[in-house]
Amino acid sequence: MAAALQGIRVLDLARVFAAPAATQVLGDLGADVIKVEEPTRGDEARYFGTSNDPGDEPNAASPPFVALNRNKRSIAIDLSTAAGRNAVTRMAALSDVLIHNFRPGAMERWGLGYESLRAANPGLIYGEFFAYGREGPLAHIGANDLALQAHSGLMSLTGEPDRPPVRCGSAIIDLHASLALVVAILAALLNRERTGEGQIVETSLLRSSSHLVNYFYGEYWSQGIIRTRMGTANHLSVPNQVFPSADGSVVIIAPSDEMWERLANALDRERLNRPEFATMGQRQRRRDEVIDALSAVTRTMTSRTLVERLGAAKVNVANVNSIGEAAEDAQLAAIGGVVEFEMNGRAMKAVASPFVMEGTPTVVTRPPPNLGAHTDEVLTELGFSESEVAQLRAQGAFGAAGAKRSSA
Amino acid sequence: MAAALQGIRVLDLARVFAAPAATQVLGDLGADVIKVEEPTRGDEARYFGTSNDPGDEPNAASPPFVALNRNKRSIAIDLSTAAGRNAVTRMAALSDVLIHNFRPGAMERWGLGYESLRAANPGLIYGEFFAYGREGPLAHIGANDLALQAHSGLMSLTGEPDRPPVRCGSAIIDLHASLALVVAILAALLNRERTGEGQIVETSLLRSSSHLVNYFYGEYWSQGIIRTRMGTANHLSVPNQVFPSADGSVVIIAPSDEMWERLANALDRERLNRPEFATMGQRQRRRDEVIDALSAVTRTMTSRTLVERLGAAKVNVANVNSIGEAAEDAQLAAIGGVVEFEMNGRAMKAVASPFVMEGTPTVVTRPPPNLGAHTDEVLTELGFSESEVAQLRAQGAFGAAGAKRSSA
Repeated sequence: MAAALQGIRVLDLARVFAAPAATQVLGDLGADVIKVEEPTRGDEARYFGTSNDPGDEPNAASPPFVALNRNKRSIAIDLSTAAGRNAVTRMAALSDVLIHNFRPGAMERWGLGYESLRAANPGLIYGEFFAYGREGPLAHIGANDLALQAHSGLMSLTGEPDRPPVRCGSAIIDLHASLALVVAILAALLNRERTGEGQIVETSLLRSSSHLVNYFYGEYWSQGIIRTRMGTANHLSVPNQVFPSADGSVVIIAPSDEMWERLANALDRERLNRPEFATMGQRQRRRDEVIDALSAVTRTMTSRTLVERLGAAKVNVANVNSIGEAAEDAQLAAIGGVVEFEMNGRAMKAVASPFVMEGTPTVVTRPPPNLGAHTDEVLTELGFSESEVAQLRAQGAFGAAGAKRSSA
Repeated sequence: MAAALQGIRVLDLARVFAAPAATQVLGDLGADVIKVEEPTRGDEARYFGTSNDPGDEPNAASPPFVALNRNKRSIAIDLSTAAGRNAVTRMAALSDVLIHNFRPGAMERWGLGYESLRAANPGLIYGEFFAYGREGPLAHIGANDLALQAHSGLMSLTGEPDRPPVRCGSAIIDLHASLALVVAILAALLNRERTGEGQIVETSLLRSSSHLVNYFYGEYWSQGIIRTRMGTANHLSVPNQVFPSADGSVVIIAPSDEMWERLANALDRERLNRPEFATMGQRQRRRDEVIDALSAVTRTMTSRTLVERLGAAKVNVANVNSIGEAAEDAQLAAIGGVVEFEMNGRAMKAVASPFVMEGTPTVVTRPPPNLGAHTDEVLTELGFSESEVAQLRAQGAFGAAGAKRSSA
């Protein structure tokens, strides 16, 4: 069966991180994603974590770029030229979805706002990705994942109780926001199947960050409680944190009274299966006592013993893995969580989209593209004649160098 | 215009956290979500962070339950009874989507597996939510958000460099997984529009956790690098962390050379706009020097001054907010990020779904339901006769107490 989004064309004006992550998911679902890049250096994410010095090769492929840009073709367009903007307008008329993450108002100033494009294409779904949103007191402020970790309060929840807040170590707000935008785009495509009408859909780092801490805001709104940092522990249940083993540490979680009883019996019935620890309310009130008693038991056992005994007793338990251990995890490979492709002659691996569709499986049709590798191919496919392409090139639409690069 | 999923019926067998978060998004999009709950105490999440003692009121509404269960009706069904399972089978035949998060194999043992249900309803989209996936060496292990923060390596990235790892302070893997499942369900609905066929779709906490750290795995796979904790800093660019102000602290990020130059000129041209700091490669190599020089400048200014000056210079800057400050943020309210409803006579607020659809706006049609409040209403709507409902009740399908509760 064809992939779920086969036949859907996505004109992708997104750069950097979160919005490209969204268009990669659309590509994994089978959409034809055309990545529009600035002609000189392309998407900044190509250089993230690399030296990023001015002499850098424009086809640098940083780990974030490789992680987030498969299943896309790259077309180099200089949006500062009228010819470049005209080419985008014409491509948008033939696309199902357009996505951008420029600052509020930038697309409108270029004549590429929704109202300008919908006239020629009323079915267009126009996806916008903002930092704090299109309007409001902070709309003009730029932001990234870290800024929203701080602004949303997530950072205030993360760290040790008596130490300063820390960052959640990955760009989780960016990646969450990417799925939020995909949800809105797919819902808009469904609506279009019935009505024929496109629409504007939008997400922002602010919205996505608030979704990631929604139950903390709710608790504050309803009860005035302001939670802070608890190390590895959790205010929702006890035990629910890292415990020391004889040779390392493991996470142990028993969120129900039944699971706590199984835990107590599996590890040390006498010291743990005590009436004063039997209910969640009691364990919450005696948090320190429960943690001390359980730690005294776990310190006498290896991590392996703890994982085996608790796993067998259907108690939630996990190793605290390094990035290397996690990337090599046999379970991740067993469920098809790793995809492979060849990129510029080199075998590469990447993380799959975070879901499985059994009837219409996700696909890997292309590696992350070299900058502008598909400029001519895409324009020809979209009906631009050879002479029109040549004219666009002469007018600087593909950059001052008239970049005509070989296909990937 | 009607909401995007109007007319879509979702039979929601999900409990606890991540999967209910997914069905709430479907409800916000206009789907009719029928939450099937165990009759005695219902969804465990009702009690999260409350005392959770045996005498607790079954309509307890913990902050996580309120945050994740609006736009649903509740029907109380005892799946341990044949009558209860028969009622679910009959409801599934009339539904577009079914979602569950029982352990692998549980639904099949109850005769509620996909193969059993598709015969009567080939268009059914059957969404499964697992901990580590359906198959593989860890498939039988239970898990929660914290377990996957540890297993995925995310925890190893989170914390201070010379201190033990900590938890990202919210259930981010749960919430990310919720959107992953929604993406798969919407893509399956789109495919069904064209083919008429349903399918199984699936996510797991493992898949979602790996997506949240995908660029770290990629860096390990391609270069063997194992990143660890950096406090609030980030390996991708410098500066990108919390800096001290005269009266607190702020996040400052300048991920491009142009933004760094604007920052330097806005704060202290002489001390910061130095040739040896001009490129990202230089700032990465001189990380400690850059941070020391910038900290020396930021310590002399208030947080407010820093936010104003850097915001005006289009440099990414943010306050480190508490949960209370973040929940009261004027920007979040300005973009419609907060929804309101009345629940059991009390005005409540909650965080909106993390996207906007301008043409087919999301809706709030109902507060989180009381346990079993809609059992009779839903069954009658789905064509069960009064005598059939009475028979199910007599057979224990709605629990031993024959729970007939009043509507919410």
